[in-house]
Order: sequence, then structure tokens, then C-alpha cells
Amino acid sequence: MSTPTTTRTSLDRTDPAGAVAAAAARCSNWGRWGDDDVKGTLNLVTDEHRRHAATLVRRGQPFSLAQPFDMDGPQKGWRRRTNPVHTMLDTGVEAELGDQGLPHGIGGADDVVSMPLQCSTQWDGLGHIFDHGRAWNGRRAAEVVTSAGDLVTGMETVASDFTGRGVLLDVGRHLGDTAHGELPDGFAILPEHLDATIAAQGPTSHVGPGDFLVVRTGQYGRTRREGWGEYAGGPAPGLSFTTVDWIHEHDVAAVATDTWGFEVRPNEFDAAFQPLHQVVIPHLGLFLGEMWALEELGADCARDGVYEFLLTAPPLPITGAVGSPINPVALK
Amino acid sequence: MSTPTTTRTSLDRTDPAGAVAAAAARCSNWGRWGDDDVKGTLNLVTDEHRRHAATLVRRGQPFSLAQPFDMDGPQKGWRRRTNPVHTMLDTGVEAELGDQGLPHGIGGADDVVSMPLQCSTQWDGLGHIFDHGRAWNGRRAAEVVTSAGDLVTGMETVASDFTGRGVLLDVGRHLGDTAHGELPDGFAILPEHLDATIAAQGPTSHVGPGDFLVVRTGQYGRTRREGWGEYAGGPAPGLSFTTVDWIHEHDVAAVATDTWGFEVRPNEFDAAFQPLHQVVIPHLGLFLGEMWALEELGADCARDGVYEFLLTAPPLPITGAVGSPINPVALK
Amino acid sequence: MSTPTTTRTSLDRTDPAGAVAAAAARCSNWGRWGDDDVKGTLNLVTDEHRRHAATLVRRGQPFSLAQPFDMDGPQKGWRRRTNPVHTMLDTGVEAELGDQGLPHGIGGADDVVSMPLQCSTQWDGLGHIFDHGRAWNGRRAAEVVTSAGDLVTGMETVASDFTGRGVLLDVGRHLGDTAHGELPDGFAILPEHLDATIAAQGPTSHVGPGDFLVVRTGQYGRTRREGWGEYAGGPAPGLSFTTVDWIHEHDVAAVATDTWGFEVRPNEFDAAFQPLHQVVIPHLGLFLGEMWALEELGADCARDGVYEFLLTAPPLPITGAVGSPINPVALK
Amino acid sequence: MSTPTTTRTSLDRTDPAGAVAAAAARCSNWGRWGDDDVKGTLNLVTDEHRRHAATLVRRGQPFSLAQPFDMDGPQKGWRRRTNPVHTMLDTGVEAELGDQGLPHGIGGADDVVSMPLQCSTQWDGLGHIFDHGRAWNGRRAAEVVTSAGDLVTGMETVASDFTGRGVLLDVGRHLGDTAHGELPDGFAILPEHLDATIAAQGPTSHVGPGDFLVVRTGQYGRTRREGWGEYAGGPAPGLSFTTVDWIHEHDVAAVATDTWGFEVRPNEFDAAFQPLHQVVIPHLGLFLGEMWALEELGADCARDGVYEFLLTAPPLPITGAVGSPINPVALK
Repeated sequence: MSTPTTTRTSLDRTDPAGAVAAAAARCSNWGRWGDDDVKGTLNLVTDEHRRHAATLVRRGQPFSLAQPFDMDGPQKGWRRRTNPVHTMLDTGVEAELGDQGLPHGIGGADDVVSMPLQCSTQWDGLGHIFDHGRAWNGRRAAEVVTSAGDLVTGMETVASDFTGRGVLLDVGRHLGDTAHGELPDGFAILPEHLDATIAAQGPTSHVGPGDFLVVRTGQYGRTRREGWGEYAGGPAPGLSFTTVDWIHEHDVAAVATDTWGFEVRPNEFDAAFQPLHQVVIPHLGLFLGEMWALEELGADCARDGVYEFLLTAPPLPITGAVGSPINPVALK
Repeated sequence: MSTPTTTRTSLDRTDPAGAVAAAAARCSNWGRWGDDDVKGTLNLVTDEHRRHAATLVRRGQPFSLAQPFDMDGPQKGWRRRTNPVHTMLDTGVEAELGDQGLPHGIGGADDVVSMPLQCSTQWDGLGHIFDHGRAWNGRRAAEVVTSAGDLVTGMETVASDFTGRGVLLDVGRHLGDTAHGELPDGFAILPEHLDATIAAQGPTSHVGPGDFLVVRTGQYGRTRREGWGEYAGGPAPGLSFTTVDWIHEHDVAAVATDTWGFEVRPNEFDAAFQPLHQVVIPHLGLFLGEMWALEELGADCARDGVYEFLLTAPPLPITGAVGSPINPVALK
Repeated sequence: MSTPTTTRTSLDRTDPAGAVAAAAARCSNWGRWGDDDVKGTLNLVTDEHRRHAATLVRRGQPFSLAQPFDMDGPQKGWRRRTNPVHTMLDTGVEAELGDQGLPHGIGGADDVVSMPLQCSTQWDGLGHIFDHGRAWNGRRAAEVVTSAGDLVTGMETVASDFTGRGVLLDVGRHLGDTAHGELPDGFAILPEHLDATIAAQGPTSHVGPGDFLVVRTGQYGRTRREGWGEYAGGPAPGLSFTTVDWIHEHDVAAVATDTWGFEVRPNEFDAAFQPLHQVVIPHLGLFLGEMWALEELGADCARDGVYEFLLTAPPLPITGAVGSPINPVALK
Repeated sequence: MSTPTTTRTSLDRTDPAGAVAAAAARCSNWGRWGDDDVKGTLNLVTDEHRRHAATLVRRGQPFSLAQPFDMDGPQKGWRRRTNPVHTMLDTGVEAELGDQGLPHGIGGADDVVSMPLQCSTQWDGLGHIFDHGRAWNGRRAAEVVTSAGDLVTGMETVASDFTGRGVLLDVGRHLGDTAHGELPDGFAILPEHLDATIAAQGPTSHVGPGDFLVVRTGQYGRTRREGWGEYAGGPAPGLSFTTVDWIHEHDVAAVATDTWGFEVRPNEFDAAFQPLHQVVIPHLGLFLGEMWALEELGADCARDGVYEFLLTAPPLPITGAVGSPINPVALK
């Protein structure tokens, strides 16, 4: 299939603020789960949903959807985001030399990591993005996230909530280039692209309430061949701003992509920065997964034609965190 | 039930090195999965095992088994282990004030963490402990873990391998004090205690190849009431050195406890440091989970009498890491 | 000399806010060096002052006034202040083993540090403390120090300004116990104590404009004998709130002590936290040195009777920092 | 003056190991200050030297020779060297909002830094470089620098030793391009270039025992105009390997440059890595300053024709550190 022309629905490229406000008005979930809610769309993942999701495990094969966490990552310092710095406190070298001061021949190695929570495969928490000073559920941003961290919706509040049915929509493979199944940078994935992918992939790809929607663009695979380039923050395929209603109507629990920023880059307005984030996080209460590694899973789904699986992607419950590094595991 | 007297099997308290060597000779898995193996006992977790584990999900209820990751943790600086330091790069306060330099009313918060990989709920990887300069599978410690990290058995090599059947043995509830179901510090859990707990808990508690054995002592619950005290490194209930054959014979994939160090503290020799680690990590190739939060899961299992579940505890694939902070999730 | 009774001047212990406001009104330097000023009392250190300070070097003997920066420090986690964590990226062990991948026999070691800027010997910068939301020179605190750091008075703005005449007032030795020359915790150093120490020490101890006033209480020496205890934040000897006018009148460039917090602890009000900071940093524009190691210098000054010296205490010019770890050097 | 042609003395470009060995044999200081020595060439800085250095302060004007420490630095991740990451624990924003939980209107800001000790303006300590597994004074590298840090020659051992007479040799201004006084990348500064610069600059530029030799190439100034480029590790002007005897004969206490790596890059052998380091650090016991900011000082010295000054460049006494970030201050 040749690369399709994106037929954009009518967006006024000069008015991102207006588009954000209108979308927020149409799709807001504020108050839907009570004024005290801290879980947003994760409320849609019920025990029954999880019970069903477990039945999707057919072969018992696990897929790690995390990129490697190391210095060879995509970060270049923007917003003080570095790649993870991993250092050793003790090593096997000293253990072998026997100079660790430990008895009866035991030796040990310990290590430390320092990293931005947004540097690699991750969840964006509900405290990560605000709209005009408002956080999820209408709270004042200044009362939610201070220098002490997220006092209300920190990742520790959703420590057990990231297990459920995952569905891979491999838009890259279905609409991208034939050689690698990759969408070009700047490609805006429209609602009709999502629907077309579901139709092409077949019945295991239906998307419904509480599902974890995983969208493969193929961009991460391209970086594996060609180098990171501007992966962190530069041009990328991604969800169009116009998918906001689709996301809201399908009532998914979360959306994850293999790109840095979930939505298409450059953004679809003349001067804008991540306008879809601005709607879905504070207004829908949606959790976003970014920088997921979907090459192996995508290939497997293409092989067996099964695009649903049990997904477990537990965040580190760092108190007050507005996001978390993760190692999502798909079990097919 | 009153607190039992630990009837220790015959250990020569003066000779930990001898005991380690003998146990290693009896229980070694070196070469069992090939000379190149990096997964140790995780080899025992087959697709079929995982497929079966998924069938254990009856209600769909998830339990996070992670302690909070924050400055109120147990670490006091020993071996340069600090508690996690979480700091913000941007906050909702600035977002609300509108001084983040971003367009159309979007605001954001980012954060950073710095932490030892062994500071809280974790997996010990195979590069964490050595015996007389030897690492898992007989490799030289100095060739496995250098200042550059674990070059052979880093956590990235087992990124997808921590999903399977979990079994909780709530030794604290079955042998500990009646008020809280907690074992006293220094209590050595013997093989017969494990067997007695299995018998008391019933058929969902059998332990077999590839299972993730989760042992609750209750000590973590005690710290929640009484403060950390010497939780990190001090006296604790835990597995007796004499369980090494039991662990080996049952061919479990991993063992996790709610204590700092898995094995009983003080150790069962006159002068020793973690001798059971010295056998099970380098010789069995066993992964150890430490500082797991088992209070909620323990209470639930006591309620419904079901002690098995689908466990997913994916490590962060930090390249070269000898351990990983984790948020294990039990799905019942 | 026996430990003196502190004769406190009239402080209304119930009204710290009133005392702060009155002192600020009496002693404010706002506008004194222009509306754009970022250097506060460092303006008092002129080239002529520094030229003269250099003439005080009589023997050429240097004294480092820094405490060791390591994990054996006083911090216990309050305000997320840890001790410095120093880790190696490469070591001599690997270099000796020759496995660093470097040519012709060269080997290397590199290292990393992670630390709060307030964890050990330090300068408090002008962005460190605010009074009712006001920073130095009357600026709004929210416009000076954000999550991006101190945008106005960051330590980089005073990178070259910490050289001048230092004067040691060894109040501990002159008013403390005879055995060690140490003031007891809770001892409030009053203006008359400062004057009495100057008189006792003789003519090299006069204090004037642009001088760096260094006050030894002896508490740090006590911790070297007895352990840190509550050094970081607990009871301590220190400057009385009532010294604010004395400090202002003498027009010193900075004041440094060998205690955690410069002023007496507990503070001299029923419920208070560092009220003297609240006046001297935002209203006087005074730089404070804390946790200086003064034992060796104090002993030397007692020996030769010379209490003045050339002081050089350059901060690390970390952009936007509100303080800096330092190694002050006194050259006598 | 036009850019000179470097007339290289006879170096066998194919044999760096031989050149290193020969230079080490000619210039070794092992044992010169005793077998226990940890100070190397800093032994040459006597009290009398420092006393004299203080007399060089003529105007009292200070110059900070540190580059800014922030994310806009030259590091790109090589050897896990990042730029400094500075984050806030509390800010003025929260202080102004009054939500810090502190009494009587006081507010505060705290901060944290995480950085490699070699990331910006620094001293290389004696534990930083080894020759065939040997550290300064002939010690075994593996016994000096382990994962626990430098156990012998850590920066804390020389905390008070970096004050003395500084001499600027502005080779860039005297031999470089006329527009900016900068040497081109790859320019090897030969002994005759040092002598010619001394001659051109006049009598305040003589270099002798215990002096801190500061060499300006101008490369740092070029990065200020043109961007960092490959400043960290790429081509650079710098000292030729052939200066080793000159350095040894002049018995300087330390040598500092405005480049990343002190010596010329590419190195003067076909396949080599910092061979001059390999001689001067482990064999001479010489401390090296790198990434110093010399533009302002250079311009001042050119103006007044005085190239000597009192230099104070105290390291942070991080226990076991093999280097230190510094803010050197020249007082003229």
C-alpha cells in the first residue's frame, strides 16, 4: 500500500486555543467519577475487564514493550531531560579481587540510576499537563503539582491500575511504507485511519471501554536503523488533534505510541505545542504512554493476526510523580 | 497459634564458607541451560506456564506489591543506599502562573528521580551477588560486572521474563503472632515451615517449577505501625540457609519476601553476611525479590483462601543493571 | 572561663512576625545598590578591600574550611536533603585489568556526584530565603526563583565576589567551655558577645565594611568527637536574632558559622523558624555561610593571636542556584 | 601575527607507548616526596610561595575562571558525562503562595545538582589517569581507585593546596589569529611556543617552581561565538606531547587550559588517546585544570601587561573524588 495522503478534517490552523477549548467542552470527563477522582480513564478498567483480558492469553508468550534505558537514548537535554545515568556502587571486579570487606567469599554489586521520569518508555500521569492552569477534574494546577511533587494525582495513586486488555493498532504496517511498515514523520493519524486499521486487522482489534490502545507508527523502528535523529521532540507521525472525539467516544483507558510525544509533530496548528495533550490529559483524564517499543509485538501480531493481549504496565509508585518509566509487558 | 520455636537443622555456626560450598555443590545449576545462559531460573517459566498462570485470574482484581518510593523510606546511607530523591523540573504552580513560555494555555510538569536500584521494592539480578569471585553460571565476576555495569546478565536481558504464576506463602499469618500475623525478627523460616504453610493454606498453595514464590513474614506490616527502625539491614525474619535445597528441589523461578534481605537476619552463622544469597544467586541463578509490600495481598488471600495468582513484575530494562526497582502486580 | 548566662535583650517571644518586620524596617538595604542589584552586601567588597585583604597574608599558610563531602554527613533526609552520593564511572581496578578499551596502556577513572546544594559547607544565596513572598531588593519571590532556578540572583551572578578580608570571631573559645572552647546548644550569641570576643582577641579582630565575618561556636568540633546527632536542623549555638542591627551596622559582606543554620536553635521565639534568615537574606542582601569547618583555623588563630586573613570562598557558578557547596580557603 | 606553522619535534607517530615510557623515565617524580605522598606537584607550593603570591595582588580585582555549570554545556554523553542537572526542591513561587508550611511569613528555596565531576571547569586529580595500571607514585591503580572512590589520593587530601602564583601564558593571543587571538583546532603548543609567549608577554610571565601555569588557547572563546561543536573531546589546540620535559623542568604545581583536554587533539600519534596525561598525572604527579574560562582574564592581562596573579582554585573535598568541579579565582 502506498503512503496515503492525509485528508485533514477542518482545523483552523490559526486557532489552537479555540480548538482546545471546543474539544474540551465536547469531551470533558470532569466530575464523571466524582469530584475526588484521581484515576481518570483508569476508572474504566473494571475487575470484569481485567478478568476478560486474562482470557486473551492464548500462547503465554510475553513481549517487553520498553526501550533500553541507557545513555544511548534520544534525549539531548531539552527541558533538562537527560538519558538515564546508571552508575555502580560496587562491582564484580572488586568482588573478584576480594577487597569488599565481606566474609566467607561473598561479593556484591550495587547500582544507582538518575533519570528524568519522562526520558524513555513511560506513562504520562494526570499531573503532567495542564490547560490554562487547570489540572484533571478541574483542580487548580498550583494546588496539584508543586515543587514537592503531585500532591493529588501522583503515580502512587494508580499503582495497581495498569493491567487490562491491550489492543495494537499497527497503523504503520497498514498505512505506511511497504518496506518497513512505517509512517513518515509529520503524518497525522486521523480517526478514519484508526477505523481502517481496525477493519484491516480484523475482529481482535476492536476498541472499547477500558482498553489500552497501543498505536504503532513504526517511527521507533526507523530510529533503530537510522539513529535517533530528532526522535525526542522533532517531527514524528502521531495522532491527529482530530482524534480527540474518537478517543473519548471509545472510552479507552489509555493510549500509547512508539513515538516521543503521542501526537503528530509538527502539530497541526501554525504555532502550537502538543494541543492534543492539553485536552486529553486534563479534560479526559487520559493516561498517555510514550516511547514504547512496538517492533517485536507488531511483527508477532502481523504473523498471527491477533492484535489483542493482556497488558501489564505498572508504574513505579514514586510518591508525587507526574509520570513513570515503565516496562510494559504484553502477554499473548 | 503461638510463635513456634525454630528447630534449626544442623548448621555448623562456625563455618559459613563450608556450608556455602556444600550447598553450592548440591544445588548448582551451572550449565543447566547452556554455557551462554543469562536467565537462570527464569528459564523455568515457559509459555505454557504463563498460559496456565493467566487462567488463575478469577476476579480480575489487581494488587500492587510495591512499597512507596520516596524519602520516607528505610535507607540510611549504608553502602551509599539512599532513599529515592524525586525532584520537579516544572510544576503546576508555574503552569498556573502562565510563565512557562508555552502557547495557547498549555502547561506542564516534569520530574526526575535519583535512586539506588536496591533502595525499595526490587529484583536482585544475577549480577548482584558473587561467590568467591564467581558469578552465575561460573563466569568470572570481574568479567561480568564492571564500572560500566553488568555486561552479561544486566536486567535488560530479562525484560520480558517476570510474568508467571505467583504463590503467596503467608508464613507470618500461619506461624506468627495472632494479632498481626507477623514473625518476630530473627525468625528463621525452615523448610518445614514452608511445607506447613502450604498444607495449612490448601491446594492453591502448591509450589512447583517456574513459580514465583512470594513469602510474607509480616515484618513490613510491622514497620507500617512502628516505624522503619532497622528494616534496611537489621534483624528480620526470613528464609533459613537450610531452605536452599527446598528452593532448588521446587525449581521456583524466583523468591520474593517483604523484608529487606530475603534471608533471616542475623544470619545463622557466628560471623556471616547473607550466605543464602551467596548460594542461590550465583549457583542456582535465582532471582530474589525484596521489600515487597504484601499486607493487602496477604489479607485478601486469607479472606478467599486462594493463594495463587498471575504475577507480573517487569524490571526497568536499565542496561547493565544488577537489579531493578519494580512494581509487582498480582492479578487474582 | 565559665559558660556565660545569655542576657537576652527584649524579644517578644510570641511575635516573631513583628520582630521580623521591625528589624526589616530598621535594617533594609533595598535599593541601596540600585533596583537591579543582585549582589547585596557583596557590593561592600571593593577592589581596594581585596587589595588590602591580600596584605594580610603573613605566613602563606592555607586553611581549608570545608567539611568532608560524603555519605557520612549530617543529613537525614529532611527537606529531601541527602548527603552527597559519589559514584564512579570508571575505576583503577578496570584500568589495571586493562579492560577499558584504551590504547597504549592509558587507563582512567571518572566520577559523578549527586547532592543538595545545601547539604554541607555552603553559601546561602540571595534566592534561598524570602519574607512574605519577597526576595532580595523587594522582588517578588515567584519571579525570582521558579522550578527553572533562580532567574535573577543565581550564584553565577556572584561567581567572582567571594574574596576578601576574613575575620574569625572565636566565640566558642572565648565564651565557651574551657576544655574544648565550645558553646552549648541553644546558646544565643548576642551583640555583646561579639564585641567581647573582638575585645578579647585583640586588634586583628575588628570588623568593618566588606569583611567576611566567620563565627566559630565549636559545635562542629563537638560533632567530630560525639557524632553528628541533630547537627542538621537540631539545637545549636548560633547568632541571636538581636544581632541583626550589629550585622547591619558593621556592613559585613557575609557571615559564616560552623553550624547548620547560622542562627541559634531553637530559635528565640515560641514558634519560629529561622527568623534571622528572614531578615538578613531578603532585606539586607546578606550571604550566609553554613557548616564551615573552623577547628583548625580556630586553633591556629588562638596560637598566633592573629584572627584576620585573606578568605577566598568561590561558589560553583551553577546557573540559577540558590546556594553553593564550597571549599573556603583562609590564607594567613 | 599570522598563524605559525607548528614545527614538531621528532615524535615517532607510530609508537605512543614508547614515547610515554621514555618520557616517564625522563620525568618521573615517583618517590620525590616520599613513598606515602598524595600531593604530587602540589608539594612545590610552599608557604613562602603563597606568601609571595599574595603580594602580586595589585588592584584587588577578581576574575572568575569558571564556565557556567548548566545544561547548556558541552557534554553529549560520552563516558556517561552529562551536563549538570540542577533541580529545585522548593521555589519562590511556592513561597509567595505561602504554601510551604512555614511560620511568620518565611519562605525558602532549596536545590540539588547531579553532575559528573569532569563535566565542566575542573581539576583532574591524581587518581584520574593511570599508566599501565600504575597510579601516582607507583601505586597499583586497583588499590587506589575502586568503586568506593579514590582511597588514597582523593581530592579531600588536597583541599587546602590550590592557592599560589598563577601565570597566564596567552598563547592564543600571541600566536593565534589576530582577530580573536585564538589557535586553530589541532594546533600543538610546543615548548618553543611557551618560551616565545613568555618572552613576548614580558617579565611578569616567568614560570617557576610551584607556579600554576594557565594556558589560553582561545578555543573556549570560539565556542562562545560559534557554539560548542565538538568542544568535549573533539579537535582542539593544546599542549604538545613534547612539552612534558618543559613542564617537568619548570616544576609547575599544575597546568590549566581553556580546552576540554589540556593536550592537543587529535593527539600527535597515529592512534592514541591523551598520551601526555598518561605521563604527567601518574608519573609527574601533576594536577591538570581543564575547561577554564580565560577570555576575561586574557583580555585584562593584555590590557595591563601583567600576567601573574594570586590564584585560588579550591576543589570540593568530595571524599574519594578523582577530580573536582571548581571556580578558580584570579586576583590581580
